[in-house]
Amino acid sequence: MNTIQQKESFLNICKDVAKPEQWERFNSGDLMVHAGDYLSKVYIIKSGLFKVCLEHREQKLTIGYLSTGSFTGLIGGESNFQYPYSIKTVADSEVYVWDRNKISELLTVFPGIANELKSTSSLWAMKLVDRLKTFAFLADYQRVACWVFDYFKYNDYYGNNIWSLLSEKEMAEYCLVGIDEFKNSMKQLALSNIIRYSHLNCELLDAKRLKFIIQAEN
Amino acid sequence: MNTIQQKESFLNICKDVAKPEQWERFNSGDLMVHAGDYLSKVYIIKSGLFKVCLEHREQKLTIGYLSTGSFTGLIGGESNFQYPYSIKTVADSEVYVWDRNKISELLTVFPGIANELKSTSSLWAMKLVDRLKTFAFLADYQRVACWVFDYFKYNDYYGNNIWSLLSEKEMAEYCLVGIDEFKNSMKQLALSNIIRYSHLNCELLDAKRLKFIIQAEN
Repeated sequence: MNTIQQKESFLNICKDVAKPEQWERFNSGDLMVHAGDYLSKVYIIKSGLFKVCLEHREQKLTIGYLSTGSFTGLIGGESNFQYPYSIKTVADSEVYVWDRNKISELLTVFPGIANELKSTSSLWAMKLVDRLKTFAFLADYQRVACWVFDYFKYNDYYGNNIWSLLSEKEMAEYCLVGIDEFKNSMKQLALSNIIRYSHLNCELLDAKRLKFIIQAEN
Repeated sequence: MNTIQQKESFLNICKDVAKPEQWERFNSGDLMVHAGDYLSKVYIIKSGLFKVCLEHREQKLTIGYLSTGSFTGLIGGESNFQYPYSIKTVADSEVYVWDRNKISELLTVFPGIANELKSTSSLWAMKLVDRLKTFAFLADYQRVACWVFDYFKYNDYYGNNIWSLLSEKEMAEYCLVGIDEFKNSMKQLALSNIIRYSHLNCELLDAKRLKFIIQAEN
């Protein structure tokens, strides 16, 4: 079995073995995980969309999104670990909730999945690094360009078309800019023929020039 | 064997088994890892101090430091992974350089170490999260307060007294402020009896008020 097949079998087993009480529904806006919690659960997203946030007083920062097929709650290996993020639904969602120890056992039977989880956590570290660069180095307009760049860079975003589930307000918050600033920047990118977009979809027309905007001195 | 004993045995084995060509010296200012490299090596710091940086054009951002006993190069598990950081010496340093596959084999004999590596990478993720919060939410003076806070929070910094190996310029760069701003903020913290410091050492007198400064609205 290759990794994709293994992942499918794994998700199918999760579906077959899951007891009714392991299957949870969250409505849009619900809080699934509260920053500072000690997680003993692993969450596997069946459908919908969650955002992973950092909070500081009234301010919020979205680090990234969890869409269909994403896992969360395996941070810190087997040890008990205070979870640094809040996780909230962006759209109505369905989740399998697993005991962390049980999922660890199950993963021994699926080495491909265990490896994928490792690279998932590396991918997550990469997302953190990208976000750090964005906030340390980039100006407002560049941060909006970066959102578009991230969207097409991460297959779990683009492949699941999470654009259609996000409001402009939500995207503006991701960029830490006001909604008017977000709209103007998006218009500017569209007028420059770098993207074409509606509230349901975004198409990348010129990746080179998009990258150039992000790399430019601000 | 508990984890500390295992770590000692592991580092002793590294010392005993290491061939002369595995033992490398770096002078202050040397580049050990270049951002974008595919690492097939694991580096174990024997002595000295390294900084882990992100770069964007002329700008630099130090994410954290690697001091005696730190590992690096295991990111991405067994798969080949493009390393997102540059790693440079801050002081003259000595390092054991290992083939990643060999270290993975060795680690199967030391489950405690393997677990510690997992929590090390979680600690590293926590450092990234703290840095993200700092840059997304905090003002200049708060970022300097945050450096002091981080220093006492992370045992590998405080326990190894890395303060004595860092210049004020280096610390100002960590905070992404100018050197004058850094000095003024440190003076302010000292005048408020929150810290006592010299270029070789820092003492925390009032952790509560330090935290309060970081948490305050800016």
